[in-house]
Order: sequence, then structure tokens, then C-alpha cells
Amino acid sequence: MSAFENLKAHFQTISNFNHLSAICGWDAASMMPAGGNEARSNAMAELSVHIHKLMTLPQLSDWFAQADQESLQGDNPAVLRELKRQWQQSNLLPEKLVQAKSLAGSKCEHAWRTQRKENDWQGFEKNWAEVVKLSQEEAQIRADATGLSPYDAMLDIYEPGTKTESLNQLFDNVKTWLPELIDQVIDKQSSESFIEPSGQFDTAQQKALGLEVMKLLKFDFNHGRLDESIHPFCGGVPSDVRITTRYDENEFVQSLMGIVHETGHARYEQGLPKTLAGLPAGEARSMGIHESQSLFFEMQVGRSDAFIKHLSAMAGSTFKGHNPELFAFDNFQKLYTRVKKDFIRVDADELTYPAHVILRYEIERDLINGDIKHTDVPELWDSKMQQYLGLSTQGNFTNGCMQDIHWTDGAFGYFPSYTLGAMYAAQFMAAMKKTVDVDAAIASGDLSPIFSWLSENIWSKGSLLTTDELVKSATGETLNAQFFQEHLRNRYL
Amino acid sequence: MSAFENLKAHFQTISNFNHLSAICGWDAASMMPAGGNEARSNAMAELSVHIHKLMTLPQLSDWFAQADQESLQGDNPAVLRELKRQWQQSNLLPEKLVQAKSLAGSKCEHAWRTQRKENDWQGFEKNWAEVVKLSQEEAQIRADATGLSPYDAMLDIYEPGTKTESLNQLFDNVKTWLPELIDQVIDKQSSESFIEPSGQFDTAQQKALGLEVMKLLKFDFNHGRLDESIHPFCGGVPSDVRITTRYDENEFVQSLMGIVHETGHARYEQGLPKTLAGLPAGEARSMGIHESQSLFFEMQVGRSDAFIKHLSAMAGSTFKGHNPELFAFDNFQKLYTRVKKDFIRVDADELTYPAHVILRYEIERDLINGDIKHTDVPELWDSKMQQYLGLSTQGNFTNGCMQDIHWTDGAFGYFPSYTLGAMYAAQFMAAMKKTVDVDAAIASGDLSPIFSWLSENIWSKGSLLTTDELVKSATGETLNAQFFQEHLRNRYL
Repeated sequence: MSAFENLKAHFQTISNFNHLSAICGWDAASMMPAGGNEARSNAMAELSVHIHKLMTLPQLSDWFAQADQESLQGDNPAVLRELKRQWQQSNLLPEKLVQAKSLAGSKCEHAWRTQRKENDWQGFEKNWAEVVKLSQEEAQIRADATGLSPYDAMLDIYEPGTKTESLNQLFDNVKTWLPELIDQVIDKQSSESFIEPSGQFDTAQQKALGLEVMKLLKFDFNHGRLDESIHPFCGGVPSDVRITTRYDENEFVQSLMGIVHETGHARYEQGLPKTLAGLPAGEARSMGIHESQSLFFEMQVGRSDAFIKHLSAMAGSTFKGHNPELFAFDNFQKLYTRVKKDFIRVDADELTYPAHVILRYEIERDLINGDIKHTDVPELWDSKMQQYLGLSTQGNFTNGCMQDIHWTDGAFGYFPSYTLGAMYAAQFMAAMKKTVDVDAAIASGDLSPIFSWLSENIWSKGSLLTTDELVKSATGETLNAQFFQEHLRNRYL
Repeated sequence: MSAFENLKAHFQTISNFNHLSAICGWDAASMMPAGGNEARSNAMAELSVHIHKLMTLPQLSDWFAQADQESLQGDNPAVLRELKRQWQQSNLLPEKLVQAKSLAGSKCEHAWRTQRKENDWQGFEKNWAEVVKLSQEEAQIRADATGLSPYDAMLDIYEPGTKTESLNQLFDNVKTWLPELIDQVIDKQSSESFIEPSGQFDTAQQKALGLEVMKLLKFDFNHGRLDESIHPFCGGVPSDVRITTRYDENEFVQSLMGIVHETGHARYEQGLPKTLAGLPAGEARSMGIHESQSLFFEMQVGRSDAFIKHLSAMAGSTFKGHNPELFAFDNFQKLYTRVKKDFIRVDADELTYPAHVILRYEIERDLINGDIKHTDVPELWDSKMQQYLGLSTQGNFTNGCMQDIHWTDGAFGYFPSYTLGAMYAAQFMAAMKKTVDVDAAIASGDLSPIFSWLSENIWSKGSLLTTDELVKSATGETLNAQFFQEHLRNRYL
């Protein structure tokens, strides 16, 4: 076997162990009783150690050196590039630092669950200092190895190729028009009235409705399922994608659109190239592109007039005995496009969401690059929140800088993916509309033309192209925030 | 670390991988959509190879040699004995034979699924010849290594320490009284009338009833769950036991008692000694002892008058709108103690079941020892079926020698466990009744005294004692079929 073939076989082995990790991880979140946790954690830790061993096998470095000399055809240079990327990512950090960060992160996150509720910044700050310090060390090592700046090296984990320079440009542009647009929309909506769900919405009926919507979105039930968990997610493996939601008996609106969102993630996974299954090149391109698919489903398709017509009709025939005006198209549309300046990112609407992300981006960028101290964060948070959304978080850590889990265990560099995803989604839709009558497809109830475009241009590419190449091949240009702005103006003004 | 400590740590690692295998195996049977099968099979095969590598690490043989010289106290000699037993079992066979048998077994089992339906003995026989040949080779290698006869060496996989000599004695004794007893009981029952379930029994209600019965049996829901699968089983790990059942909308009787049976397996697993978790000495003693616990729950407790009173009341209040006479105690008792000579082992009642097992035992014993040929099996099956149950299977392979999955992939030596389990259960009950008022405990609805006895005498022992030692310490003597006979006479005559 050539070195390249040896590498592929080795990564197939790793992929098999990752499969077990994905399924047992899904089980832990959606099925496992609490008493199973200790033994499961031990088993998962053992598996992580094993996967890490496979990823850092000394032999691999010879194979990569040899494979570089082998003549590779077709997709194989890209396959090798992605193999090498995953291998380098896994071998960059000294094991001691990985363990120290994992320990400090677990400790900080665990305490944060209580401290957040108690608005206890003092307590949190003590644990977090260590997480920030170790993350800065990590970023520096990654920077030294890649020639990137420390924060760019962290970005590279989640968004390969994306750099501070382009994020600054994109987000600075957004900042020039977003606050004003938000004010205009809120002003416009202030005169509108609508009905919010009240009464009881049976969870079995909510589930049936969710499954019906997943069918409309052509989720492949032969290769996946819908279950429940406290924090909704898309897990499993491409041949068996597990999405979850959380039901609230008092309303169905959030869970229903949550299912649309996770179905977007799921169809990307289900649509990845089967010929590259088990290889990094066959995996999703990046966190931002993954989010572009969930947001394409949730925001571009899911909140379109044509789709909201389906949702309102399906919900109306599911929940009998409620006020029928609740399920009127107009009312549904208002429910799903309401804009409000508020503190919490995960509850934010489409229009204010980028403000939450830009705020976090600017803070974590400066923190990781060592330009600010972790103790500066609450004040910076408050001043940016005032600037972007006109809200003060002075003394309010619970709904301020302590609201997210990401920073507690050092996942710096992740936040930009959310807004990159929203921007990619808008750009994909604009490109799709050149050849597909999207609104007609949605209205007809057969959304296949939409999914064919996504499959051909995004899903089937896996990681064969870089993100820039992928976006250019799909839309004719690299990321352009103009499409996102136009989309928001069209929908909300 | 001492060699003994090294061995324990190594087996804890193996146990962690077995944990992942158990959970993903449960998932494949109860959750996974069909399309997930190929990737899952690959992942599970990779895991098996890894576990096999860990079990056959050359280093282990040195550690075992050293550990034999170390001075071990308390439970540790038994812990070492069981470590060694699992290691020896895994290292006995050449890998080539394991692979060949696994391949031949998969091929034979796969084809059997169709061939059985088509009564195609000719087709089956061709594949089975190879399975039998390889199983005979396996038995001979095991015999050479252990000094046992070939069949005893196979028995030793499932029932360590149990030998043909004692099985012959036990089963020959059963054969002297069972056929006559069956005839007497059928004659007695022929004049009885009873009502069978008819109409629809909602599966959600069946599940609610099953959960209620599991609560009565003190299943620990913090360490386990109930789900559905085509073939009911008890899986998972001791800290998180997964039992399954299968619902039939036309009746609830079978699934309900099936849940009682699996709960017996589950409580054994949940009651294993936590201090020995992850070590072979902390696992269930044998297949026969495992079955003794499921049959203790199903036959000794579950079919007692006092328990059937609970079942009939619980079912009656679950399924409204049915004929109330269906749920009368007398009727339930008749439903659950009906005896019938029939072809299929898995559907057999308590009384005829041993006949099915003895027939299989006698045939597989002679087959593995080379005293008969695999082509002799249909004729032998027919003649023994005539002798024990008065039924002919001439030309009827579907409901004759092709009915079970066990032989298709070479699991010879397993069948006796079922009847050994029934015998152990009867003997445990007789011993328990010396100190526990079993009927009063069941009638009161608080079955704790029963479970305390089982926990103290069986569950908490894990595999610290040999089977003979365990049975003797619990009941004062080794296995004695007399208790089983008395139990059957008391219940059915």
C-alpha cells in the first residue's frame, strides 16, 4: 500500500471510533438515566485517549512525508490536504496543555452553572482566569506553528482560512447599518398586534407536527431520527443523523422552528459525499458552513412567506380547540419575524443576533491577542451592549458576559461562525434564485429543487474545496455581506 | 504497580470499550434506523478487533505468571481467577479459526432467515456443514487446552464448571417424570375454560403498565430504561441497564410477562457488586445463573398467585372498555399457566420448555463430540420430539431443527442454560422460603424481602464464587433437580 492508502485506512479506523463516540454522546444527552453518567464518562474518556493515540501515532508523520511525494490524481490531493489538516490540529498541542485546559475548563464550566444563576462574577472570574491563560498559551502555540496571529490560529480550528482581517471588514460593515435597521424595524413593528400561544400544547402532538415538518424538508428517516434533549443538537453520523429538540407544553413556536434549524444541519450531514465517508474530506466544511445550512433552513426557507403558510396550516390542523386566529398566516408571520433588543443571544431574533456575535467577537479577539485582560470583559460587554443594542448590563453578569457556555471551557474563536453562517445562507439563497424559483417550490410543497441545488453546490462537496472555493463555486464570489443586508432589508422593512 | 494491579487496570480499560459496545449494540437493536446499519457494523467490527487486541496483548501472559506468585488477600484470589478465565477464553483459539467461524456463521445465519421460512433444509444444510465443522474444530482445540471433552469445553464458555456427566444425570431424571406430568396437566386443563384477550390494546398503555410492573419489581430507573426491539433482551451495562420488549396491539399478556422476565435479568445486573465494577469477578456468574434470575422473576414470582393478583388488577385498571372477566384473577392465572405441546421453544410454557431444551442438548452434545453427523439432525429431532412431546416434525424443518438461531452461527453449548436456570430458580425459591414469607411479601406489594435475599445470596456475589459454590452457599447444596420437579407439581397438578 502507498503511504496515502495507509493514511486513508488509518483515518477510517479513527472514523469508526468517532462513530462510537457520536452515538454514545447522543445517548448520554438524550437517553441515558442520570445514574449511568459516571461509568459512561469513564468509557468516553478512555475512548478519547484511544482516538488521541491514533491521531498522534509517530508512524503518521513518515506517511505524510511520503504521501507528499506520491503522485495523486482527482480528489486525492484535497483528500490528503484534509487528512493533514486534522492530523496537524491534533498534534499541535502538548498533551500536558490539553489536559490542563480540559481540567480547568471542566472546573470553570461546572461552577459556572451555579455562579451564573447567582450573578457571581467574582467566583467565576477566579476559575476563568486559568481558562483564559491556558487558552492564550494554546493560541500562541498554534500561532507559532501556523504563522497566524494568536486569534486567527484559534479561528482556524472552526473556520479554516478565515482571518481577523476579513472578519473586521465584514463586521465593521454590518455595524454601519445594523443598529439603525434594528431601530427602524422595531419602530415599524411597534404598531402591529398579534396573538401569542396560550394554553396547553401536548408534546406528543408537537412531536407529530415536528416529524411532519421534517418530512416536508425531506429529512431521510432511513438515516436518522428525532429525539429529545435539554439542549437541542444535531449529532450521530452521516449515515444515521440524530437531531433533538426540547418541548415546552406552554408553546410550540420555538421547538417547531428549532426542528427546522436542526433539520438543516441534518440534511447537510445526510448529503455529504458517501464515496468519502470516514475521511476528513468527506466531512462538513466548517462550523460556519454547517450553520449556513441550519440557517438556510431556518431563516431563508423557514421564515419565508411560503413556508410560514405551510407551518401555520400544519400547526392549525395539529392543535385543535385553540383560538384559530393564532394559526392564521399573518399571525404566524408576525410570531416568527418579531424583532426585540434583548440580553440573551440564544433567544435573539434574526436581526439582533449579529449584534450579539460581533460584540463577542471583538472581545474574544482582543482577549486572545493579549490586548485586554479578562477582568476588562464586563465593562467592555456593557459598553458594546449599549452601543449595539442600547441595553446596559452594568452589574448584570447573569445576562451579560456570563450567559454563554463557550468561553467557560475556552472555545474562543467559535462565535463568528454563527453570523458567518447567516451571511453564507443569504448569499446561497441569492445565487440559488438565479436558477430556481424558490418561492414556487416552497409553495408547491415539493422543495426538491432547493435541496438539489444545496446538494450539488454544498453538501456533496464535503471538504474537497476550501471555504472560499466552495462559496465562490456556488455563488460566483467569496463571502459578500451585501446579500445578508439585502435579505434583512427585504424581510423586515 | 504489582502485576495483579496492572492486570486489573488493563481489564478496566477493556471494560470501558465493552461499555461502548453494549450501548451501541442496544442502540442498533432499539433505536438505529435501517440505513445506519452498514457504518455501524463497521464501527462495531473495529471495536471488536480492538478489544480482541487488548485481550491478547503478549504482555498479559507475563503479568499472569507474576500475579500467580504475588500474595493476594480477601477477594483478590477470586478476582485473579476470573481475570485469568476471561483471558484464557479469549486466547484459546487461533485468530484464523475465529474469523472463519464468524464468517461461516454470518453466512449461515443470514441465509437461514430466508431458508427457514421456505422450509429449505437442503440449502441450509450446505452452509451449516461448515459451521458444524468449524465448531467441532473449536471444541477440539478447547478440549485439548482444558483436558475436557469437546462438548464440555463448549459448555464451559457459558456454564463454567458444568459437565456432560451432571447434565446427563439431571436431564435423564427429568425425562423419567416430565412427559407423564405434561400429559396429566394437559388432561386436567382440558376441562377448564378461560377468556383470551381480544380487541385492541394501545401500546402506550401497555408501556405504562410495563413500567408500573417494573416499579413493583423495584427496577432502578436511575440506572436503566425500558425500550422496544424486535427481539426482547437485557443489554447495557450494570450502571445503566437497557431492557426491551415488543408490543402486539392484539394482546398484552406476552409482552407484560416478557418485561417481568427481562426485569429479572436487569436487577441481577443492577445488583452486581459495585466495588468490582469493570472486573470479570464483578460480572454475572454464568448464563444459567443469569437465566435463573429472569426465571425467578417470571416463573417463581411472576406466576405466583399473589403476583398474578397484582397483574390482573393493574391490567384491569389500565385497559378500560374491555370485558372485565378477562382481568379476573382466575382468568389471568389460567392465561399464565396454560400448558400445550407445541413445536416452538420460544413460545413454550414453563412445563414443556425443558423437553425442548433436553432434545437440543442431546443432539448438540453428540454432534460436537462427533458421535453423529449434522445430516442426522432432522431425523433425530423428529424422533425425540415424538418421544418427549408426541409431535412429528417429519419434513417440517421450519418448526423443527431450523427454528432456532443458536446453531446457525455455532453457539453450541448454550441451550442447557435455559433449563439449568429454571432449576436454579426453583432451588433458590425453596431456600428463600425457609427465611422469607414470600407469598406475604408479594401480596403486600412490598417485595423487598425477596430482593434482599437475592441481592445478598446471588447478585452481590458477582463471579467471586464458582457456580457450585454460589448455589451451595445460597441453598445449602449444589444443583438438585428435585426442587424443580416439586415446583412444577405444586403449580400444575
